[in-house]
Amino acid sequence: MKHAALSRLGQRSEPPAISWLMEVALSRPQMISLAAGFTDNESLPVNEVRELVNELLKSRKTGQAALQYGMTPGDPRLRELTASDLRRLDGVPDSGKAYSPDRMIITNGSQQMLYMATEAMCDEGDIVLVEDPTYFVYLGILQSHGLRGRGVRMTRDGIDLEHLEATLKELKKSGGIKRLKMLYLVSYYQNPTGVTTSFEKKLGALKLLRQYERAAGHPIYLLEDAAYRELRFSGEDVKSALTAKEADRVIYAGTYSKPFATGTRVGFGILPEPVYTAAVRIKGNHDFGTSNFLQQLLSRAISSGRYEEHLAVLRRRYARKARGMLAAMKQYFPPGVEWWEPRGGLYFWARLPRSMRSGVKSRLFQTAVAQDVLYVPGGLCYANDPTRRKPDHEMRLSFGGGTEANVRAGIERLGGVLRKLMKK
Amino acid sequence: MKHAALSRLGQRSEPPAISWLMEVALSRPQMISLAAGFTDNESLPVNEVRELVNELLKSRKTGQAALQYGMTPGDPRLRELTASDLRRLDGVPDSGKAYSPDRMIITNGSQQMLYMATEAMCDEGDIVLVEDPTYFVYLGILQSHGLRGRGVRMTRDGIDLEHLEATLKELKKSGGIKRLKMLYLVSYYQNPTGVTTSFEKKLGALKLLRQYERAAGHPIYLLEDAAYRELRFSGEDVKSALTAKEADRVIYAGTYSKPFATGTRVGFGILPEPVYTAAVRIKGNHDFGTSNFLQQLLSRAISSGRYEEHLAVLRRRYARKARGMLAAMKQYFPPGVEWWEPRGGLYFWARLPRSMRSGVKSRLFQTAVAQDVLYVPGGLCYANDPTRRKPDHEMRLSFGGGTEANVRAGIERLGGVLRKLMKK
Repeated sequence: MKHAALSRLGQRSEPPAISWLMEVALSRPQMISLAAGFTDNESLPVNEVRELVNELLKSRKTGQAALQYGMTPGDPRLRELTASDLRRLDGVPDSGKAYSPDRMIITNGSQQMLYMATEAMCDEGDIVLVEDPTYFVYLGILQSHGLRGRGVRMTRDGIDLEHLEATLKELKKSGGIKRLKMLYLVSYYQNPTGVTTSFEKKLGALKLLRQYERAAGHPIYLLEDAAYRELRFSGEDVKSALTAKEADRVIYAGTYSKPFATGTRVGFGILPEPVYTAAVRIKGNHDFGTSNFLQQLLSRAISSGRYEEHLAVLRRRYARKARGMLAAMKQYFPPGVEWWEPRGGLYFWARLPRSMRSGVKSRLFQTAVAQDVLYVPGGLCYANDPTRRKPDHEMRLSFGGGTEANVRAGIERLGGVLRKLMKK
Repeated sequence: MKHAALSRLGQRSEPPAISWLMEVALSRPQMISLAAGFTDNESLPVNEVRELVNELLKSRKTGQAALQYGMTPGDPRLRELTASDLRRLDGVPDSGKAYSPDRMIITNGSQQMLYMATEAMCDEGDIVLVEDPTYFVYLGILQSHGLRGRGVRMTRDGIDLEHLEATLKELKKSGGIKRLKMLYLVSYYQNPTGVTTSFEKKLGALKLLRQYERAAGHPIYLLEDAAYRELRFSGEDVKSALTAKEADRVIYAGTYSKPFATGTRVGFGILPEPVYTAAVRIKGNHDFGTSNFLQQLLSRAISSGRYEEHLAVLRRRYARKARGMLAAMKQYFPPGVEWWEPRGGLYFWARLPRSMRSGVKSRLFQTAVAQDVLYVPGGLCYANDPTRRKPDHEMRLSFGGGTEANVRAGIERLGGVLRKLMKK
């Protein structure tokens, strides 16, 4: 948007891809959206939140504390509880320095954490490595700040370490390494592919990044976005990069939005110095602290055990919805459509034959919209990386927001469109 | 904070002045803080919020809607109610285009609005005119973004238009005008001086800015920070700059934090194009929307009438606390200390004889701390403007957070210190 009134950031900012999709959905009431990243509506903890608020506001003392300003880095109790939860997940004893509440900051969803970490570390023209594909809203942050994204390929268990090494080598050769600031990894049930990065790959990535720090002339961080970590269907949790010996190069972003209630928008980050101090100062300038009321609500949800209880319900529910989408895809999608089964999160990533375009201008997308079913075109999830052409034959399908019947009907409609177009 | 890991913004970010003051306050439990900008603790709407949440979460339908994601620019109903409230305050008929909910964005306190408007318009090296003195957290935004603040003097009824004109002339002559993006004005019961800008001065400032747009080569905006507008003790409200014919150059920032509950952190902005569109996109990257739960809580507070009722109580309460501080200053402060009586807000601004330093290293400040009373040194509220020396003989005194007895005792202590030191 060129306009002399705007800064370079203001001019570069683009409408988020998803907002257009949401408009399409709103304009057609019969539309089934498999595009939105909404969380399950039916299981939102309405009663739990009502009870928690009543407890919190029962006495004037706790009530006033909740309705007054808090501290910029966040409520000490919530930071303590969050750190202790993470230590437990990662199987780290209480003394784990990387998990100190003093390295934690509470944010407006994990999104604000991603924004502030990027602001704290990256100048216009800097390079950030991202998964190919990756979370599209993060691409918006890169784009608006004039940062260069470089895509690193993925395999079934996360980032392709050989491609990461080749990319680092190439950046060293071209001199670009001096502008490389971090690797952004959506490590659990990734948005959009559903892929989980193995712990070994996290260690491998950290080791590789460290090897190139001398050439870079500065630390190269791993920004681990664990937004979906808690939404595991079954099986073992994977340790976070905070447990690595290179923990001083790890920024961990998590959230309570998805495992508890998206409407409360409380996230958090754990950051090493000097990024932590810079991020707290930036938070001071953004808003000097996330709503104290919401933070105390979350503190109480965790300490009362309601958070864990609700999460257990939620995980079973998403597991069932994922099975439902899987069964529907098997039934309704034609041969030639492929996917990996996620072990958590909200998404399937469907890959069509390469000749089959899925972008917003494609026949497939247009026909799907006409048939009242919406998906996220895969191309939106790829960084603007001049070293490769953006793939345009994939779809992100979410089972998060809709009911089971809705998800099934959506897949049936989409399957009908796919069968028709793939026959030709 | 120089460190190769950080961006220029990360490196420039400074610890907020007030955080150090808060640490001092916390380290001495007997301390009476007249420094913190906290709102009145006793009158926080604990019962009101509990009732509102119970209503909101009574049915699963409204409950689920509140706990789900909302829209990036904010809840349509809250935008509607806020726009209509503003129109009423400004005495503008329903058709007032400047007040369209489509030009409104709901933010995490008005602070986020100030941050995003500045991000949307200003590049490193750009110039922003501010009142001399001004809100110190805004100075942190300028500083971290590498922007240059220029101070414009104030008189009893707001900005000194002659000095504004002289500054604009000088900027035109020096070529700096090409980098001038806006004038930031805390127009109601200003933080820190308590001064209210008259409507005539707002019009005068807008007219002057417009005259220099040709030389600038781009629009020059007025960012009107109306954070304290609702906290009027008595008398007439002053119209906002949105009622001017230059409304397309006005960005208005308001908040529900102070008139309702600081712990809820809900603010708003009204912006003209192209800044509105840029700000919504930036909001999408920051956090894609303020907590929907808090927004629906506020919507209900307003539509149920509880917000107005609570505000009426609050205004009487602050008026009484301000009278209490005034009476105490008259009683305990030595001759030679001057102040203007505010007609709203949370602050008095006390001016000492120029020979009397008030900065953090001054004898006055150190003695006050030793006597367990804290104020905000006036020097912290002045931009780093190389064209003048920062005044260092003033104090911001807040009657917001403490009880009436507390405020009175604080002024008594501070008066004792002043009498002792001013005798010498």
